[in-house]
Amino acid sequence: MQNEDLIQKALYGLPLDTKTATDNDGGSIQKEGQTKAGFLAQIDHSFSPDGYYTEGPYYQRYAMYPFLIFALSLEHQKKDLKIFEYRDGVLLKAIDALLQQTDDDGEFFPLNDAQKGMSYYSRELQLSLALGYYYGNQDEGLLSLIQKQNRVPLTYSGWKSAIDLAKGKGKKFDKRSIYLSDGPKGEKGGIGVLRSKEHELIMKFTQHGMGHGHFDRLSYSLNYDGHEILQDYGAARYVNIHQKDGGGYLKENKTWAKQTIAHNTVVIDGQSQFDGKVKVADRIAPDEFVFSAENQKVQVVSAKENNAYEGVELFRTLALITDESFENPLVIDLYNVKLSEEAEIELPYHYHGQFMSSSIALTRNQTLSPLGKEDGYQHLWKVAEGEADQEYEQINWFDKTRFYTLNVASNKGDQLVMARLGANDPNFNLRNDPCFILKRKGQKGNNLMASVLETHGSYSTVTEASRNSYGNINSVTISFHTDEYSAISFTNKQDEEWTFIISTVDKSSQTTHEITIEDRQYKWGGPFALFRNDLKQ
Amino acid sequence: MQNEDLIQKALYGLPLDTKTATDNDGGSIQKEGQTKAGFLAQIDHSFSPDGYYTEGPYYQRYAMYPFLIFALSLEHQKKDLKIFEYRDGVLLKAIDALLQQTDDDGEFFPLNDAQKGMSYYSRELQLSLALGYYYGNQDEGLLSLIQKQNRVPLTYSGWKSAIDLAKGKGKKFDKRSIYLSDGPKGEKGGIGVLRSKEHELIMKFTQHGMGHGHFDRLSYSLNYDGHEILQDYGAARYVNIHQKDGGGYLKENKTWAKQTIAHNTVVIDGQSQFDGKVKVADRIAPDEFVFSAENQKVQVVSAKENNAYEGVELFRTLALITDESFENPLVIDLYNVKLSEEAEIELPYHYHGQFMSSSIALTRNQTLSPLGKEDGYQHLWKVAEGEADQEYEQINWFDKTRFYTLNVASNKGDQLVMARLGANDPNFNLRNDPCFILKRKGQKGNNLMASVLETHGSYSTVTEASRNSYGNINSVTISFHTDEYSAISFTNKQDEEWTFIISTVDKSSQTTHEITIEDRQYKWGGPFALFRNDLKQ
Repeated sequence: MQNEDLIQKALYGLPLDTKTATDNDGGSIQKEGQTKAGFLAQIDHSFSPDGYYTEGPYYQRYAMYPFLIFALSLEHQKKDLKIFEYRDGVLLKAIDALLQQTDDDGEFFPLNDAQKGMSYYSRELQLSLALGYYYGNQDEGLLSLIQKQNRVPLTYSGWKSAIDLAKGKGKKFDKRSIYLSDGPKGEKGGIGVLRSKEHELIMKFTQHGMGHGHFDRLSYSLNYDGHEILQDYGAARYVNIHQKDGGGYLKENKTWAKQTIAHNTVVIDGQSQFDGKVKVADRIAPDEFVFSAENQKVQVVSAKENNAYEGVELFRTLALITDESFENPLVIDLYNVKLSEEAEIELPYHYHGQFMSSSIALTRNQTLSPLGKEDGYQHLWKVAEGEADQEYEQINWFDKTRFYTLNVASNKGDQLVMARLGANDPNFNLRNDPCFILKRKGQKGNNLMASVLETHGSYSTVTEASRNSYGNINSVTISFHTDEYSAISFTNKQDEEWTFIISTVDKSSQTTHEITIEDRQYKWGGPFALFRNDLKQ
Repeated sequence: MQNEDLIQKALYGLPLDTKTATDNDGGSIQKEGQTKAGFLAQIDHSFSPDGYYTEGPYYQRYAMYPFLIFALSLEHQKKDLKIFEYRDGVLLKAIDALLQQTDDDGEFFPLNDAQKGMSYYSRELQLSLALGYYYGNQDEGLLSLIQKQNRVPLTYSGWKSAIDLAKGKGKKFDKRSIYLSDGPKGEKGGIGVLRSKEHELIMKFTQHGMGHGHFDRLSYSLNYDGHEILQDYGAARYVNIHQKDGGGYLKENKTWAKQTIAHNTVVIDGQSQFDGKVKVADRIAPDEFVFSAENQKVQVVSAKENNAYEGVELFRTLALITDESFENPLVIDLYNVKLSEEAEIELPYHYHGQFMSSSIALTRNQTLSPLGKEDGYQHLWKVAEGEADQEYEQINWFDKTRFYTLNVASNKGDQLVMARLGANDPNFNLRNDPCFILKRKGQKGNNLMASVLETHGSYSTVTEASRNSYGNINSVTISFHTDEYSAISFTNKQDEEWTFIISTVDKSSQTTHEITIEDRQYKWGGPFALFRNDLKQ
């Protein structure tokens, strides 16, 4: 760090004599249009203004160490550079962003290629936590994580953290609902995390994330009390376990884990987004539409994706509703699929636990065949199927201590397919997890997949007492649906009724909207509103 | 309790005017040959001299309360009866026996019809713990369990327990290797629990256990650190969960959970023991052969069953070996099947976790069919199969933090079948657990299924470090096998060799044995011995 010439080269790179470059695994080294190089360019291109790292939190955990150790050297040797203030303090924001992408047990959300179970207990996080504390705003929440790590790096910041912990400082780290934009200017989609009570909803609509990205646009996952209710599979890999192809990425990572059907998002005509082509997907990102978490009772994340399939516009709105009429937050899902011609729409739910019952009668297969031949379908055994014969159907399962019911505003003729992972897996590389898939014959124009997911009741194997195992929701209907608005109404067993409406074209918080549904007038300001129908909002 | 006539009737029953009686579920009320009735007769017939309850620990937890609350009343009102000393203190022994049948988390071994997760935290145990402490020998280990319960009954014993806890008494409850005989005189088989470090091996060879019994003779299950490595499925039931047939026993309890293939024991010709007939099974019990746990390094449980199949003698010996050359205890399994004619032998392993690799090449099925039509096989999907082409084969899997390898002394031509539960289950009542099955074409005479199961290595998803994932055992061979002796030899990667020998006819500890294997002389006293071949025992 005493050689200014080397420092300059490290910061700004060598002159670029190529236009693009990739490594031998297809990973991007130099992107098209990229004209800068060096450490600062790397910071610019790897992190969004919110500190989101383009490959996702699993790789961010890994990448933070070299970024920070070099930044620390710069801070010592080139103080005038003010590296920790660079780009509005993006390196420090990245530390917070990374920690916000952990569940109640400290495990990173398994987005993109990610091995589950990696957490803020990893050794790479030691430096992040100490630097975040010292160079940031001395957030005592970070001290509590340092205490969990029970180790500090041999830096001044590490020493200061230890001293402050010894002084009795430290408080619970504050996890909050957060929107993290992706892209150097925050213009390439992002992830929205909604939190309420024990629930954590993660909607992903980032750019592709290069070689480690998955075809998962507009997918979401859901955690309860630190464990997954609706999962993202993560990577098909057993890092460093020799039996599994030397511990590297397994073939099934590409053929299953990256495919769209492996995620809780719509699949059109049995094909993955962008036909599974990374280069095409890398070019364009989804668009954030709304992220709103100021009102803890009605939190919303919403995004659009119009490029993943030709002639298909995908627009998903997820709302996490906390209302005293329900013991847990509800998840409203309004997933509109606008088609230029008829197509098959499939929406998979990768649930955990034991399937309990469904209002759709299911016929089990006597022998099992794979659901398809490619795009991940070849790995799913088709276990059972049934057909909706009502416009409201329920799918109910149990996991650990709670019951879950997906309340679906169905079309008669919609299909429910029960599946299990594990087909075409010669080396037993896949977990044999279950999922169910809602299928609809999509018509030209708008097709709204609408549902409300309820967490309810409880069960204990010690008391053997079962409480509220069927849930409290009584009906769900699409009450309004045009090119401008989508509305879903639902009732509970106490005959209370709610209507959630979103404007699908105007996201301004200034606009006032007014529509009439079944002779009732709804008027509100901003893009969305939840109405309790016997009351004014 | 003031009416002596009623007390007498309660203690000794009304005169019996029937010979047998059953309830409407086929449960036994009065057994053939039973001439006594009342409370004392119930104690006599329900508990073995060791305190084992004939239906197993899950039901014992439930049954203990009425037994003890009545006993407590008798203790108060009829002190001269000395009810807690009755039959050498069998009620107090039953409390200890029940607690010894729990894993590291306090959960009861799921033997017979049992819902997993029931534990000594259940409310029924409060009275047992307080009475066990007060009327027993003031075992402070019980105090620590009372502290975990965090509640005492409103009895003098409850008060005394709370006082002693407040005085700071209490120590870790002592779990130990234990043999619990079954039957009123301890003459009807039993269960053997071997414990060493984090390992817990449970071998079951009790009498059938009436209506709640399973066809599971000579099966074993294995726990590591409080979780199951080789599981007993337990009952197919979700107690009190309405969706699942009102919370009662499910059809699959009979068609799967009770069947022999659902347990880690040999199945002959695809049929359950006693052809799945409870009445026949109830008539005769297996025989304990050896239980020895004095030497912590070589603990052995061994039993015979000659009635489950016509013309078949089953004799299984399990040894839990703790040796400094291995990081964890090993399980030696010598399962001899003596056949009067050729038959198919199948030995299932209901493992938990992810299959990693096998020295037997496996071919996966492109479509899945059930393994059979009845006796539980109709519920298993046949996933893959392979054939042994060596006389030593390994099957390796991973669960949570550890690796496991079954090292098999195979015959060329033995088959390995990978299966998964879930076929013919129209209402999704079964857990879709995996298992593998070792198959051998059994010849007339002795057929010895021999193996060594090794727990080894470690893996952490936080450090991503994998250690010793293949295990340390290098070979396993059947080194001697006659009508009088069985011996297994195994080596490790450090070229150390061990031989375990058991006399299969003489269980006396007085007898001295001497045999020669490959020019090496082995001489020992008692039924079994473990030799390290470069040293004397």
